[in-house]
Amino acid sequence: MKTRIVEVRQGILKKNDALARALRNRFAMTRTYVVSFVSSPGAGKTALLEATLRAAQPRFRVGALVGDLATANDAARLSRSGAPVRQITTGTVCHLDAQMVGSALDAWDPGPLDLLCIENVGNLVCPSGYDLGEDLRVVLFSVTEGEDKPLKYPPIFNTADLALISKIDLAEAAGFDRETAYASLYRIRPGLPVLEVSARTGEGFAAWMTLLEEHVNRKRGEGGGRLN
Amino acid sequence: MKTRIVEVRQGILKKNDALARALRNRFAMTRTYVVSFVSSPGAGKTALLEATLRAAQPRFRVGALVGDLATANDAARLSRSGAPVRQITTGTVCHLDAQMVGSALDAWDPGPLDLLCIENVGNLVCPSGYDLGEDLRVVLFSVTEGEDKPLKYPPIFNTADLALISKIDLAEAAGFDRETAYASLYRIRPGLPVLEVSARTGEGFAAWMTLLEEHVNRKRGEGGGRLN
Repeated sequence: MKTRIVEVRQGILKKNDALARALRNRFAMTRTYVVSFVSSPGAGKTALLEATLRAAQPRFRVGALVGDLATANDAARLSRSGAPVRQITTGTVCHLDAQMVGSALDAWDPGPLDLLCIENVGNLVCPSGYDLGEDLRVVLFSVTEGEDKPLKYPPIFNTADLALISKIDLAEAAGFDRETAYASLYRIRPGLPVLEVSARTGEGFAAWMTLLEEHVNRKRGEGGGRLN
Repeated sequence: MKTRIVEVRQGILKKNDALARALRNRFAMTRTYVVSFVSSPGAGKTALLEATLRAAQPRFRVGALVGDLATANDAARLSRSGAPVRQITTGTVCHLDAQMVGSALDAWDPGPLDLLCIENVGNLVCPSGYDLGEDLRVVLFSVTEGEDKPLKYPPIFNTADLALISKIDLAEAAGFDRETAYASLYRIRPGLPVLEVSARTGEGFAAWMTLLEEHVNRKRGEGGGRLN
C-alpha cells in the first residue's frame, strides 16, 4: 500500500507542476503578478488580504481567489474591499492545487489584473508541495502560535519566498520571544526576507505594501510596456 | 486520476479503521484511557498537555505520544513533566494514523498506563479522517484564531468529542467575540461540550482535569477492578 500511495502522490505532484507551468505562462502573458498566502488557520491571512486589496486598488487592478473547505465567508469579507473575489470551496481537500486555480480562473472574469492574490486553505503542512504558478509565496505565522513553528513545519517555510510575522500587536500580550522566533526561522531558511505586520493596527503594513508594489510594477514593466 | 486517488484514499481509511479497532481492543485490555488532541499549529496543544501530564501524575500513570513533521522539541518539553513521552516524527505526513500509533507503542515500554495522551500534528484538516483508537478526541481552538474556525473546518469539529477554547487569557487582547465563537461551533456541532482554558494562567484547567479524571476513573473501573 505504501508504495502505491507514494506513486500516486508523485503522479499528482508531477501533474500539478505541469498545470502550474501553464498558469505561470498565462500570468506572464497578462503580466499579472500573483501572490499566494499560506499559514495555519487563523494566522490572519484574510485580514491582511482585505487590507492589501483596499490599499492596492487605487493604483492597481487587483483580484483574489480564496480557498476554504467550507463557507464563502472569506470571499464575502474580501468583497467589501470592492475588488473582484472568487471562492474556491475544496470540500475535504486540505490545500489548493493548480487545477483548482485554473478552473476558477476559467469560470470567472475579473477583467485584466495587475495583482492576483490567492489565499490557500489554512494549513501549515499540505499546501507546501503544490505550485500554484505564483510569483511570490508568502507564509504567515502569528506571534500567538509559538516561536518554534518554522522548526516544526519546515516544508512550508522551505517553499516560501517571504515570511510575515502577523498579529505583531499581540506580541507583548502573548509573550512573543522575537529572538527565538528569528533563530527558528533562519535555522530553516537563512536569509529569508521577513516582515512584521499587524492588520489590526497597521504596524508594518506600509513596508509590506512597498515591497508588493515594487514587485507588481516590475512585472507590469517586463517586456517594455503594458499589453492592456 | 481523480477516481484512482479516491479509491486509494478509501483503501487507506479502511485499513486505518481496522488498525484503530485493534488499538481500541488493546487499550480496553489494559484499561488505558486514551485522549487525542487536534488543532491548528500553535493553538496550545503542547502547553495544555504539559500541564495535564503534571497534574494527572500523582493519581494516575500517564504517558504521551506526540506527532510532528520534524524535531523532537515537544517530546523534550513534555518529558519535563516526568511522564514517559515518545515522539512520532512524520516527515512530510500531515497527520498521525493508527499504524504510526501502533508502531510507536510496539517500540516503547512506558509501563502500564491509566491515561495515554496523543498529540497530533498541528493541522485542522487532515487528522479528521484518521481514527487512532482514542476514547476522547479533543479539538482545541485558540481565541486568537478567529471565531469562525468551526464553520471553515467542519470535518475536524465533526469528529471531536470535546472542544477546548484555548489561550482564554488573551481573549480581551485579541478582541475575542465569545458569542460568535459559540454560535459557529454549535452551528456545526449542536451540544458539543466546550471548556475554556488557559495553560498559562490556569483558568479553566480544574474543570478540564475534573472531566478527564472522571473518564479515566470510569475506564479503570470497567470490568469491576484493576488488572494491574
